[in-house]
This record gives sequence, C-alpha cells and structure tokens, in this order.
Amino acid sequence: MINIGIMGLGTVGTGVVELLENNRHVIAQRLGEEVNVKKILVRDLSKKRTPYAEGKLTLSADDILEDAEIDVVVELMGGEEPAKSYIKKALQNKKHVVTANKEVISKHGKELFELAEKSGVSLLFEASVGGGIPIIRPMKQCLAANRILKISGILNGTTNYILTQMQEKERNFEEALREAQRLGYAESDPSDDIKGFDAARKLAIISSIAFNTRITPDKVYVEGIERIELEDIKYAGELGYIIKLVASARKVGEREIEAIVAPVMLKQNHPLSAVRDVYNAILVEGDAVGKVMFFGQGAGKMPTASAVVADIMDAAREGRRRIYCTCYDELKVIDVGSSTSRFYIRLKAKDKPGVLSKISGAFGRNDISLHMVIQKDVKGDVAEIVMVTHQVPFRNLQKALDEIKDLQDVENVANVVRVEEAASDGVHGNHQ
Amino acid sequence: MINIGIMGLGTVGTGVVELLENNRHVIAQRLGEEVNVKKILVRDLSKKRTPYAEGKLTLSADDILEDAEIDVVVELMGGEEPAKSYIKKALQNKKHVVTANKEVISKHGKELFELAEKSGVSLLFEASVGGGIPIIRPMKQCLAANRILKISGILNGTTNYILTQMQEKERNFEEALREAQRLGYAESDPSDDIKGFDAARKLAIISSIAFNTRITPDKVYVEGIERIELEDIKYAGELGYIIKLVASARKVGEREIEAIVAPVMLKQNHPLSAVRDVYNAILVEGDAVGKVMFFGQGAGKMPTASAVVADIMDAAREGRRRIYCTCYDELKVIDVGSSTSRFYIRLKAKDKPGVLSKISGAFGRNDISLHMVIQKDVKGDVAEIVMVTHQVPFRNLQKALDEIKDLQDVENVANVVRVEEAASDGVHGNHQ
Repeated sequence: MINIGIMGLGTVGTGVVELLENNRHVIAQRLGEEVNVKKILVRDLSKKRTPYAEGKLTLSADDILEDAEIDVVVELMGGEEPAKSYIKKALQNKKHVVTANKEVISKHGKELFELAEKSGVSLLFEASVGGGIPIIRPMKQCLAANRILKISGILNGTTNYILTQMQEKERNFEEALREAQRLGYAESDPSDDIKGFDAARKLAIISSIAFNTRITPDKVYVEGIERIELEDIKYAGELGYIIKLVASARKVGEREIEAIVAPVMLKQNHPLSAVRDVYNAILVEGDAVGKVMFFGQGAGKMPTASAVVADIMDAAREGRRRIYCTCYDELKVIDVGSSTSRFYIRLKAKDKPGVLSKISGAFGRNDISLHMVIQKDVKGDVAEIVMVTHQVPFRNLQKALDEIKDLQDVENVANVVRVEEAASDGVHGNHQ
Repeated sequence: MINIGIMGLGTVGTGVVELLENNRHVIAQRLGEEVNVKKILVRDLSKKRTPYAEGKLTLSADDILEDAEIDVVVELMGGEEPAKSYIKKALQNKKHVVTANKEVISKHGKELFELAEKSGVSLLFEASVGGGIPIIRPMKQCLAANRILKISGILNGTTNYILTQMQEKERNFEEALREAQRLGYAESDPSDDIKGFDAARKLAIISSIAFNTRITPDKVYVEGIERIELEDIKYAGELGYIIKLVASARKVGEREIEAIVAPVMLKQNHPLSAVRDVYNAILVEGDAVGKVMFFGQGAGKMPTASAVVADIMDAAREGRRRIYCTCYDELKVIDVGSSTSRFYIRLKAKDKPGVLSKISGAFGRNDISLHMVIQKDVKGDVAEIVMVTHQVPFRNLQKALDEIKDLQDVENVANVVRVEEAASDGVHGNHQ
C-alpha cells in the first residue's frame, strides 16, 4: 500500500480525492497495490469538504512532511510559497513529490530537480501543463530519441474559449470574457490568463524539456489577447485564418531558441486551428517522428486530477532509475526583436491621397515588403487599412510602426498580430 | 552502456540503426548512458546495408539470444514466426524485448507478457501501433487513473491516404491506390491495409490496454474500404460528412465491449475528420480526463524508429517495478449484429412508382426508421437512391437489406456505410 499526503484541498485536490475513491479498484488493479490518502493539509477546518476527506484533515504541514509512513507528497496548493518550501522539505525527507504547480516548477525547477536527484526520489509535474493531456511524459519518454525542432501549442483554455466565442458567436471581447467568467472558465481577475502569463509558464516548462535547457518564464516574450477585437477576427477569417493565442518555441540556430507567447493568425487547415473552446493542444516536431500532436482538456477538476493520480501511480511504481532533469544544455533564448514572422497590421488613417504612400514608405525604409494591403470601412474621412507583411524581423516592424504612428494622417495603429506560415500537413480544411 | 541486439534490418531496422547513430549524443545525455548496437540479425549477408551496420551482422539468432552481454533484444523482423519464438527465447533468457510486431503482440500478447513478468523483464511495443505517435505509454501510464469509455482512431496510413486522395483530388479508388503504391504508401499486395486487417490488429492491442481485457484480432469486426466509391465520398460531402476508416472500441454494457473496424461517415467537425493523408490519430475518452487525442505519422521509417528507440531507452531505464500486462479482466466482445449505428445505404433501383414504398416497407418491418432519403441520378429508368437510417442494430439492417436485395425492382445495393453521431466538441468546422 502506498500512503500519500495531499497538500491543498481546492478544486484539484478535491478532484484527486474523489478520483482515488471512485476509481479505487481500477487504480489498485493497474498499480498492483492500493493508494491510501493518509493526510490532507488545509487552511480552514470549518469549510465544507468532500466526505472522503473526513478524518484526514490537518492544519500542520509537518503532519505530512515529517510522517515516515507517507511515501508521496501531492502538492496542490498553487502559488509560490509556501508550496516551494514544502516541496523542498518533502524532497529532502526523501519523499516523492507530485505537483500541478506551474509557477514553482517553471521558476525553481532547476533547484528542485537537483534536490530530487540527490535524494533519489521522483518529482513529477504532468498536471502543471495541459491539465489532463499527456504531454510531459510523452515528451520525456516517448520522444526521447528525437531532437525537437519546434513545439507550439494552445496552452490556455480561458483565452481559447474567449477567442472561440468571438470567432463562432461573433461576441466582442468583453462579452466573451463575461461569458467565460460566468461558466467558471475565467477568474474574476483574469489577467494571468488574458495577458498570456499562464501560457508563458507552461511554455517555459515544456520547452525546457524539449530543448534540454532551462527556460524560465521571464525569458519568454509574452503578448496576451487583450487587444484582439472582432474586426481582427473578421479580417483573419476573410484572409483564410483563425486567431489563436499560440505559445511556441523553436531552434533558430545551433544554440539559440526563440520562445514566444502571442496571438497568431493560423491558416484554417493548421492542426491547431481545429482546437476550439477550452481545449488545449501541443504540436511537437521531432527530427525522427515528424509532427505529433496531443489534444485534450487543458484544465478542469477531473482532467487535472487524472494527470495527478497518474503521476502518483508512477511515483509508486518507479524503480531506482528515474528520469531526472534533462536540462543538461545551456541554450540562449534570443531577443524577440530578432524573431521573424509575417505580421498583420490594422490601422486607421485619414482617407487622403498620399497616406498609403507614406505608410508604405515607412515599411520600405525598414526593409519590410508588403504581401497585401486592404483599405476598408471608410467612416467619414477615416479609413481602416489592413496590411500583411512578408517574413521580417520583429524589430524592423517595431521601428516601422514607430514611424507610422508619428505620421500626421495616421489616427492609430489598432492592432498588430503575427501571421503563421501555412502548415497544411495532416489536416483537412481549405485546400492548398 | 547498454548492449542491444537487433533482429531484422529492413526499413525500420535501418531507421533504428541510423537514429541511434545520428542522435547518439542526445540519447546518451538523456539516458545517462550509451546505447551500443552489438549484433544485427539478417537473412542475407550479401545485401547492401547502411554503413553503420558494418561488422555487426550475423545469420545466427543465438548470437543475440544467447549472448549474456546483450541486455535488450529489438525484434523488427515482422511476421509471426520466427519472430514469436525469438521473442520467447529472449524473455526466457531474461533479456528485455522491444518490438514493432503487431501480429505477434495482438495474437500472442497474453503468453508473452506472462513470460516477461515471470522473468522480471520488459516487453515494450509502442511501435506496434501508430508508428511514432505516443499511444501505448500514454494509455498505460498517463491515463492509468481513468476508466476508458471509448477509443476510436484512424490507425492505417495507406487507407487514410487513399480516402484523402478520393476526397480532395476526386480520384477514384483504383487511381488513388495506384498513387499510394507509387509513393510507397501501399504494398504491391495491399489487402492487409485495404481490407482493414492491419487496423484490426492495432485496435486489438490498444483496446486490450484500454479495457484491461484480452482482445485478439479475430474478435474485431472488420470491414475495409474496398467498396468505397467516389459517389459515396460525394454524397457524404453533401450531407456534411467525411468518410474515414475508423477503428473503434467502447463499453456497451457493464462487462461488454464492441470492437469494430469499418468505414464511417464522420461529421466534418469531428476531431478525426481533420486527420488526413498518411497521418493517424487516436481519440480516447476517459471518465476523468474526458476526450484526449494523439495525432501524428502512423508509419514510416523514422517515425517508427523514434518509437522503437524510445522503448529501448525505457527498457534500459526501467527499474524493478515494471508495468506488466494489465489485462486482468475478462470482458465479452459482443456480436457485431448487436452493435447499433446509423447507416448510409446507396442502392440502384428502377425508377417506378411503388419502388420506394417497397424499400421503405422492408426497413419498417425490421424496426428501422429512416432519417433521410434522396433520389438522384436517374440514368435511363434506373435511379440511385441514398438513405440514412436512425440508430439501429446492425442485424436489423442486414435483414432489411436481404429483403431489399430480393425485390424485383432493386438492381443492387451498391454500398452501406456506418454514420457516426456528430461529436462537435473541441474542433472547428461546420457549427452545430
């Protein structure tokens, strides 16, 4: 029998307790032994809890961390402290640790994995990225023979839900966000999701694994979806694209990586374009396996519990030879200014002769050639102009836009969105 | 250092040797030790081989099976014998075995897993289903806390390529098959793929894992794509569907399973509809995780080598507690006559008053209600009639069709294809 201590009894903690109870038989059969929840750490004994937690609650972390009978500590509190300190102590006390904490893993992974290795125990974190979708273990084990060339994904359900609502129901951003909050897909303060920080933490974790180098969230260039408006969604549709918040990392040189979270216009037949609503997906490109994609529910009580319990079973099962941190390399994350992309720009300018020429001039001076220009929607004497560039470095675009914003006849640059090259392999849709 | 013996140096064997050499450094870094190919079993020493094989070739299986230095035997010969006997001997000699052999695993898994467990070694077979796509390990480990409700997939690249060609390029079956053969996606004798047997073996393997019960290929109901014609593809498109060869298994009762490989019309926004060309995908529905899908190249030299080498690394890495066969249950695979589905029927009948009434009568007598009837394409006095039923047991349909075939005015029943209920979750496309 395996004894576990659960730290935190929020949504995911409750899901884990319920899953261990409801699927007790199946789990015991597959593992070859029972999993017993011995203690559960909470902060408030008076709160109403799942009946399965009865008799196991404690307010004292040491009741778990210092109990010699407890083999696996399951950290589901979230947040940086005291979660990080508890994880450290558990590892020091030679207990396996299973966590869903993307903040702690993405920022302090190096230190904690070294500690786990020294103690000869497992530190497992499948639930920290992509909820229930198997990602970490497939990447670390199943794709272990590949050099990873690129990973890109939709890693945040809140923003994907909002963009889907805007796309399919033509709701504007605020309405879509309110709907997400109503359904529990967004927090009352949704900035972590909306601004892309949640996706950035997850990208830091999976790109560290993919490229065997330590990438922390501060190294990731982050843009959220706050500026996406219905007009952008519509123009994207007209041009054959769908806007997604894409987290991607890829090798751009022998020892250089690009890591970016930003809204991207994807061709309608891109594998990620088919991922809608709260679903997440990660597309991995390996030099042997080619393109592989994992898709499923990136968050939610039971999907996340599914990943946590699978890790508990692995911790119970793993023998002496574990997979430790494989961040043996030290690659450089390039400055985002050097990253190249195609860009969509939507701006408002006075509908006068010569305006387009001045705008194009700014692009030309910065070595940016234009793929397409559409002038639309003249309201009064103000026209909306939409442009798509060819592949250019981001810093060139930023310089061109600085010049354009200064032009007298330009009212504002309403939005700038990256445009992905078409990746039509493997997916039906608009035919190439 | 891990010493391995490779049995068979065909396409996949060559891919494995090349991958171990080309990604030698990455593999050693991640595994923590080197993988050395000590011996390679071939049948013909005179054949031209990859230079990496030099000095390692042998005609004698015992050079590998009886070599105490060899830790892992990699069986890549294919076919039932002598592969099965070699695997048995390797396991008896307490060597780990990695294989891509779906025939041996699907038919003789029970015996071989018991032997592996008795010897305390691993028998790994990720490459036997879905080429490089991580499927086996995610199902056995990452989804281990779930009761699986259903699995469905596109498991054969040859047939998916053919159907995609028919769909997108409007090639007829014979042309599409010739193109597949020209590109190396189909064998000169393609029956194993076309008739669905390859998909059936793979379904047997993954449904055994999903439902913890031994399912052998003979228990799977199999229909191939030989009867699919362009007309069916076109009607499907008109009705908002795409035809795929779907392998699926699901719980239909407490202790009963349905296991079927057959062409199915999927709604255009079904996650599997987006899987085109030679790509494969498996959609798994777990009671905690919900829907999860794995997508990638189901075959091919390097994708398959990717899976084989990952298994070699796992065999090297796995400690004492392995995941053995988890087929502890004994569920019953129901007779396909009891399986229910919607059905599309295309038939040719004389364009006369009363014919439709007789045809409908046959359906009515067998408790089949019709969802839709289209009469088209009258050539001379022969009309093509397309019908879609509501959800009915297969045996009722078979009885109705037997009666219909006997009707004087019915020329022939050109085709019958299952129609899947729409699963619009998670995928863009036609909106519900």
